[in-house]
Amino acid sequence: MTRAQLTGQIRDKKSYLCVGLDTDSTKIPPHLLSAPDPLFEFNRQIIDATKDYCVAYKINTAFYESSGAKGWESMERAVNYIPSTHLKIADAKRGDIGNTASQYAKAFFETLAFDALTVAPYMGEDSVKPFLEYKDKWTIVLGLTSNPGARDFELQRAGDGYLYEKVLTTVAGWGTPENLMFVIGATKPEWFDSIRRLTPDHFYLVPGVGSQGGSLEEISRKAMNKDIGLLVNVSRDVIYAARGEDFAEAAGAKARGYREEMSGYL
Amino acid sequence: MTRAQLTGQIRDKKSYLCVGLDTDSTKIPPHLLSAPDPLFEFNRQIIDATKDYCVAYKINTAFYESSGAKGWESMERAVNYIPSTHLKIADAKRGDIGNTASQYAKAFFETLAFDALTVAPYMGEDSVKPFLEYKDKWTIVLGLTSNPGARDFELQRAGDGYLYEKVLTTVAGWGTPENLMFVIGATKPEWFDSIRRLTPDHFYLVPGVGSQGGSLEEISRKAMNKDIGLLVNVSRDVIYAARGEDFAEAAGAKARGYREEMSGYL
Repeated sequence: MTRAQLTGQIRDKKSYLCVGLDTDSTKIPPHLLSAPDPLFEFNRQIIDATKDYCVAYKINTAFYESSGAKGWESMERAVNYIPSTHLKIADAKRGDIGNTASQYAKAFFETLAFDALTVAPYMGEDSVKPFLEYKDKWTIVLGLTSNPGARDFELQRAGDGYLYEKVLTTVAGWGTPENLMFVIGATKPEWFDSIRRLTPDHFYLVPGVGSQGGSLEEISRKAMNKDIGLLVNVSRDVIYAARGEDFAEAAGAKARGYREEMSGYL
Repeated sequence: MTRAQLTGQIRDKKSYLCVGLDTDSTKIPPHLLSAPDPLFEFNRQIIDATKDYCVAYKINTAFYESSGAKGWESMERAVNYIPSTHLKIADAKRGDIGNTASQYAKAFFETLAFDALTVAPYMGEDSVKPFLEYKDKWTIVLGLTSNPGARDFELQRAGDGYLYEKVLTTVAGWGTPENLMFVIGATKPEWFDSIRRLTPDHFYLVPGVGSQGGSLEEISRKAMNKDIGLLVNVSRDVIYAARGEDFAEAAGAKARGYREEMSGYL
């Protein structure tokens, strides 16, 4: 999916919501557990209920790998079920030396039909470049994350700024705003002014709204650019909105609520 | 596997070799491709031929994920086939927020029977701690890697040292030398003196010997501690020693050669 297509989807739907399919087998409604593939059955119903209100889905690989090969199959079914109008993000945070990174690129961009992959920057250029070589795919590099541990390294001084700032400016030179995004956590809206100065044109994938407490209004006000430039991810707050047989309906209502709020900021 | 058990294995075998099962479906001998599971058949024969000369196997998840769920099954077969005398390392370089990291820990320490997992440090403490909570399992955190991209961030100044030094000293406080190792690349032996000063007691998993050009002698001389403290990984140079029907025999001979050299340094 190109940037123009993504921006078009956002404008058409008046939404920059990404729904995070962090589907945890211990948290899905009990009545689904007798399905042949409970993780997929949950995702299928969540996708059906939310697809009109979001422009992207983010599948966090950890929640599937914890079930082994069976989980990997559930992930494959989920990515194949997501409509082609939606950006399909693998939140895998991979990062390894060049020849290994190429294998990860193959895993997510060829074997699985993802449009985008999150990548960890620690190992530097040759660990990121193999992903950027894929046409019409997106590499989403961790910048400033939404978790408490961000203070340990990301927010340490490195040169004349913070490490995450060094990451943003260095990695921005390896790709373009057409194939590279950054993960920027919503729990630190006070940082968005300087982040936008460093990377004015890039899209950000923003986790941390919802269960993690980030403010959608503040993020939207501070971080939007002329092409919107924002995908705000909500996982738990949408997909676990209810735990009974009405879970999908409740998730749809939550997603619609986010869309309504977002449409006001566009 | 405890540290005492690992050190015991090293002393018994006079080897601190780890064989890296970076099994690439495009590089295995053609006569294996008709096997029901070619990746596993290759690994099985490599393990049989090398197990007397090494104390650990490292499975890089990328090479299995590139084949999808089928690859994940091959990985499961491989880890189950490795003898319990050997440390079973998943080289997965995972890293995510706390509740997600717990899912990765479950994936590799419960669903799959690995003893150890490589972890990326960028996201900080809550992305590493869930792995350290497992008894008798090892968390192996990226310190200084062997690839060219190490210069981009790991070797940038952060505070009064390099970023990787900050990572070593900070992460060392989250675990103990009984449950925490570091990845330290062999291609930069000149750094080992200062690295040992910062982390005198930890084991290091050292990639970069063999195809990547690091010197086993120099690493061994500079980095060994009183409990040895080294696992030197060789992947391609062992497993692709020959590409014909004699591939396993050739791999065994290569591994035996490394063991002979290592026994001289012990």
